[in-house]
Amino acid sequence: MPFRNISDFGINVGTMPKGKHNSICDVEGVKVGHCTVEDENHHTGVTVIMPSEKNPFVYKLPAACTVFNGFGKTAGTIQIEELGTLETPIALTNTLNVGIVHDAIVDYMVTRCEEEGEELRSVNPVVCECNDSHLNKISDRAVKKEHIFEAIEDASDIFEMGAIGAGRGMVCHGLKGGIGSSSRIINIKKKSYTLGVLVLTNHGRLDRLLVDGMNIGKDIAEKIKGNEQDKGSCIIIMATDAPLDSRQIKRVLNRACIGLGRLGSYMGHGSGEVAIGFSTANEIDSHSDKVTRKIKIFNEDYIDDVFIAMSEATEEAILRSMINAEKMTGYGGNTVHSLTEFL
Amino acid sequence: MPFRNISDFGINVGTMPKGKHNSICDVEGVKVGHCTVEDENHHTGVTVIMPSEKNPFVYKLPAACTVFNGFGKTAGTIQIEELGTLETPIALTNTLNVGIVHDAIVDYMVTRCEEEGEELRSVNPVVCECNDSHLNKISDRAVKKEHIFEAIEDASDIFEMGAIGAGRGMVCHGLKGGIGSSSRIINIKKKSYTLGVLVLTNHGRLDRLLVDGMNIGKDIAEKIKGNEQDKGSCIIIMATDAPLDSRQIKRVLNRACIGLGRLGSYMGHGSGEVAIGFSTANEIDSHSDKVTRKIKIFNEDYIDDVFIAMSEATEEAILRSMINAEKMTGYGGNTVHSLTEFL
Amino acid sequence: MPFRNISDFGINVGTMPKGKHNSICDVEGVKVGHCTVEDENHHTGVTVIMPSEKNPFVYKLPAACTVFNGFGKTAGTIQIEELGTLETPIALTNTLNVGIVHDAIVDYMVTRCEEEGEELRSVNPVVCECNDSHLNKISDRAVKKEHIFEAIEDASDIFEMGAIGAGRGMVCHGLKGGIGSSSRIINIKKKSYTLGVLVLTNHGRLDRLLVDGMNIGKDIAEKIKGNEQDKGSCIIIMATDAPLDSRQIKRVLNRACIGLGRLGSYMGHGSGEVAIGFSTANEIDSHSDKVTRKIKIFNEDYIDDVFIAMSEATEEAILRSMINAEKMTGYGGNTVHSLTEFL
Amino acid sequence: MPFRNISDFGINVGTMPKGKHNSICDVEGVKVGHCTVEDENHHTGVTVIMPSEKNPFVYKLPAACTVFNGFGKTAGTIQIEELGTLETPIALTNTLNVGIVHDAIVDYMVTRCEEEGEELRSVNPVVCECNDSHLNKISDRAVKKEHIFEAIEDASDIFEMGAIGAGRGMVCHGLKGGIGSSSRIINIKKKSYTLGVLVLTNHGRLDRLLVDGMNIGKDIAEKIKGNEQDKGSCIIIMATDAPLDSRQIKRVLNRACIGLGRLGSYMGHGSGEVAIGFSTANEIDSHSDKVTRKIKIFNEDYIDDVFIAMSEATEEAILRSMINAEKMTGYGGNTVHSLTEFL
Repeated sequence: MPFRNISDFGINVGTMPKGKHNSICDVEGVKVGHCTVEDENHHTGVTVIMPSEKNPFVYKLPAACTVFNGFGKTAGTIQIEELGTLETPIALTNTLNVGIVHDAIVDYMVTRCEEEGEELRSVNPVVCECNDSHLNKISDRAVKKEHIFEAIEDASDIFEMGAIGAGRGMVCHGLKGGIGSSSRIINIKKKSYTLGVLVLTNHGRLDRLLVDGMNIGKDIAEKIKGNEQDKGSCIIIMATDAPLDSRQIKRVLNRACIGLGRLGSYMGHGSGEVAIGFSTANEIDSHSDKVTRKIKIFNEDYIDDVFIAMSEATEEAILRSMINAEKMTGYGGNTVHSLTEFL
Repeated sequence: MPFRNISDFGINVGTMPKGKHNSICDVEGVKVGHCTVEDENHHTGVTVIMPSEKNPFVYKLPAACTVFNGFGKTAGTIQIEELGTLETPIALTNTLNVGIVHDAIVDYMVTRCEEEGEELRSVNPVVCECNDSHLNKISDRAVKKEHIFEAIEDASDIFEMGAIGAGRGMVCHGLKGGIGSSSRIINIKKKSYTLGVLVLTNHGRLDRLLVDGMNIGKDIAEKIKGNEQDKGSCIIIMATDAPLDSRQIKRVLNRACIGLGRLGSYMGHGSGEVAIGFSTANEIDSHSDKVTRKIKIFNEDYIDDVFIAMSEATEEAILRSMINAEKMTGYGGNTVHSLTEFL
Repeated sequence: MPFRNISDFGINVGTMPKGKHNSICDVEGVKVGHCTVEDENHHTGVTVIMPSEKNPFVYKLPAACTVFNGFGKTAGTIQIEELGTLETPIALTNTLNVGIVHDAIVDYMVTRCEEEGEELRSVNPVVCECNDSHLNKISDRAVKKEHIFEAIEDASDIFEMGAIGAGRGMVCHGLKGGIGSSSRIINIKKKSYTLGVLVLTNHGRLDRLLVDGMNIGKDIAEKIKGNEQDKGSCIIIMATDAPLDSRQIKRVLNRACIGLGRLGSYMGHGSGEVAIGFSTANEIDSHSDKVTRKIKIFNEDYIDDVFIAMSEATEEAILRSMINAEKMTGYGGNTVHSLTEFL
Repeated sequence: MPFRNISDFGINVGTMPKGKHNSICDVEGVKVGHCTVEDENHHTGVTVIMPSEKNPFVYKLPAACTVFNGFGKTAGTIQIEELGTLETPIALTNTLNVGIVHDAIVDYMVTRCEEEGEELRSVNPVVCECNDSHLNKISDRAVKKEHIFEAIEDASDIFEMGAIGAGRGMVCHGLKGGIGSSSRIINIKKKSYTLGVLVLTNHGRLDRLLVDGMNIGKDIAEKIKGNEQDKGSCIIIMATDAPLDSRQIKRVLNRACIGLGRLGSYMGHGSGEVAIGFSTANEIDSHSDKVTRKIKIFNEDYIDDVFIAMSEATEEAILRSMINAEKMTGYGGNTVHSLTEFL
């Protein structure tokens, strides 16, 4: 299925130019893979973001995370905070599957390192989650180890959006959500950098949904007589080739809330909002035994454009997760409409 | 001057009911005072928020703070974080006057405690700031000790908004900003609570200003041929009579960014965004020598309405800071227009 | 095996009285269970701390965590930070087994809630880890789901210390470490509270080990010609019946580093130090639909004794993990001596 | 007065080599100045640490801070956290003088920048404090602006320790405290780095004082029949020429608690412990308009020696603040003994 773009619906977000695919994979080396788990009771899955071609355990990437609302189960944050690096793929799944996916990522890294002759005794899997229990029988933990391996196998710089992979059973602003992505190009003097965002959307109340500044959610809520408390989450993954260090990445991630807010989220109590980001620009070679490393670092005086890129790409990624998802009926006969029915 | 309300301009923010004065003083006991410092070169001042009628050093209030962007000089945050309490008035002023205002608050507290027979050897003034150097000769530090005492003297539950007190020289989204306030009433079952917000606005780019979801800032920027990087700050003060503890207050403060984002801010690099909040519901009597205190604490399952109140009141308070401020020419002949010219 | 006490070796830590069992289980309702996994290549296991008799998902307990060094994989911290509550048993295991143990805790909670007629769609397992790869073939992830269930089954207020459960393969200051526990009684006016600590010790360099202030590690290192960089972790679990809120619990946990430092740790780069604590005094009934709850809260003016209790109990618990562990040879023929050989 | 060294009393701290002066000024470019304010009622002062020869506002230095116990009034932390830089001298003084010293640092920076033709509209003074009210009539705020200028004028790479400058009226473990400093040399491969610590000591209980691992405080407390709750603070300033970024500096600062703990502190409730540190290795030239900067950054695999240096230098600096301070009688006739009387 070709993607739907927000421009197809006459919607526009922001002013900055977009990357070639308008996705997180516009950042060179980043790939995304899905595995959807689908049967009568289960509508769930896993999505992986591969941060680079190289083994991230050996060539670690500067990284950071921001927890807007910690009512969530994301694993791997304390090491990112401490060391400022990412050393595995990032996996997204449903809330109760964090453990199995965590174990699968360990498995993948152990095997990959063995194959490459690298010693691995400790590794920090990053696993994020949203709660898809409205459409998925979550207590079954339907995502199994092989699904994670399939998602990794599937990873490519072209990937589907909407109700797929980890996004299969997600609900955003009372409508069908899932996986969305968008990117922005940052031109400063003669340099050009790319920032991409991928979101897993499962947050927000319908009656507060804003699109292009208009509260269309209110009308939709009246039409379909549905509204619910914000009980979900939104996971935001950011990649960039700008040479940001972990402190700078964290500052950029902090702007994701702007994109959430523009669409009507107030970051509800029951909704865990977590952003994780990395830069591909200054990989840290674990083999090096030199006392110092030479790196190029971004001049923070120019960081405003990166902040704007982050807020715009987050907003557009959330919208794309919605417009690329179809109406769907899931576990327990619950039906969730698509935003596209109302645009 | 009677206040202007956003409804005068056909603007509406959110869905929750407002308090009697639509200001932070709708929370019983809270008072606000200004002292404006104005001469040829100086357009600055100080604004104080008195958290309660009682001496806050003796009857401390549960409090918290959230730093969205720490490129600012707000003093007093580490003790609020550690002890979760507020023990002085909160003062707002210009960036380079933090020291003098800090000393004046110490002076006020020492004197007040002496008069009341209370021992004070240590006290934690809370002083927030924005940078008014576009309209004010800031290096002179024109705010003197007596101005703080005047502002405290002036404190009342009715106070002016716009270009007054600490807001005198502030610029918001390239237009005249300053002091704004708004409140919301939270009805849960048969209980009713009030949440009020006061802001000092000095942030945002003109071309990104959104009002009611519409990017009117872009047109204004073209009209007045003005736009600048976001180099300012936004200070957000929250008061509530809901019995929140400091962790819960922090969660509420975290939603202030939603109000900022809805109006077009992306929390620019040079703009320090800091929110400080307190609850009047469970004052802590320093005289008590009991081993435990009995308190009532808010059931967090109901906190969504407090979150929404925070985001709505912040958004409306920022707008009110702008619509109540007139066009003004300041230091160096710099002129700043009023949003009201364009609505 | 009856426990060894530090007094058996003429060692004394601090001045405060100890609880009946000198363990974390002196806090009423707290139980500890182990399952050791032992074969030729594997010397590992799991230890669980059951925070109360009641279902912790339904009756949540105020909790907090402190990350001294985040070079670790502990899962569950962001929700504890956000909501200030614990809702599952706390499980300790080896680094690469976090995922499987996480999944097992979900399994246990789903089953228990089903049996008790409680709905569970989301739950936040707390899983802590240290790296036992010096004695255990860690990449095999030898701890399986059934081992976690066995450990839960085993939970009792009397439990073994030393090289057992999660502590089976741990190394502390170059000597055999593992599980240790200690408690202190806090008497304030006519009230009496208990604070207990359980540690999983896998940190520290031998040549820096201090016992009773004397650097005996240096001599031992020369004797056994062994010393290594600090590559491990120390997990510190605290329980108390003092009515502390989550902010206060965090302040208490912050003192665990004192106990670590007194024994010679400098919290090495490769050693993840994480403390998690809870209070049994103000359980939060999830069924309640009241807008406010009445609680008793500890008067912070008296918190110094709780701080001292924390630092003393942590120091003694670490020592007890060492004196209750025997010399052992593990995977790859690596042998680790017992501190008891040198006292 | 020549310094007293701990070796004069047969005391030794750690194993790493010390710098030439065994002080923070062993880090090239760092200078320290005092101004003591002394009359019948007042025994207080100010101490400044000048981070480099150059104007720190123009050539900012990578920096970080760690708050072990935030019951203190240190100003300037949120900007250090956000931007990871230091842009002024660091000033130490008494608790109630933070405002005046803050204003004086603004004054100094405004004047210096004017003289050097640099524009300054905003600046972030870093002012730390301890409470000397046991020996000083603190409510008078006896430190005036001119004293700060005198301390800056006095700055040199040779400076006195003990009851001088900000340390004049401080009490440490119930004995006379004040200013202390120590340094360590870090040799890695063929590179050599220096780390220096300066402390302002005003913390700790006498009966818990440990020297060389021995609880000599208990005996002293019985002898002089004195003991008090821990009501003070300890400020720890770290400088290094190792090329650490702000995240790495924070990790190093986190080890200061080890030095505190080894001497018997449990970081009491009333005692604000704050550490601030900077690296002189990668100054950030504010004039640069390049999009990226080239820097050398420390290989974190080698950071253990920096951690050990920090814990050793902190411990020794605290001891040196005590052994270089004489017995003294201050405001209200309060007398505080010197540790040297009992060694």
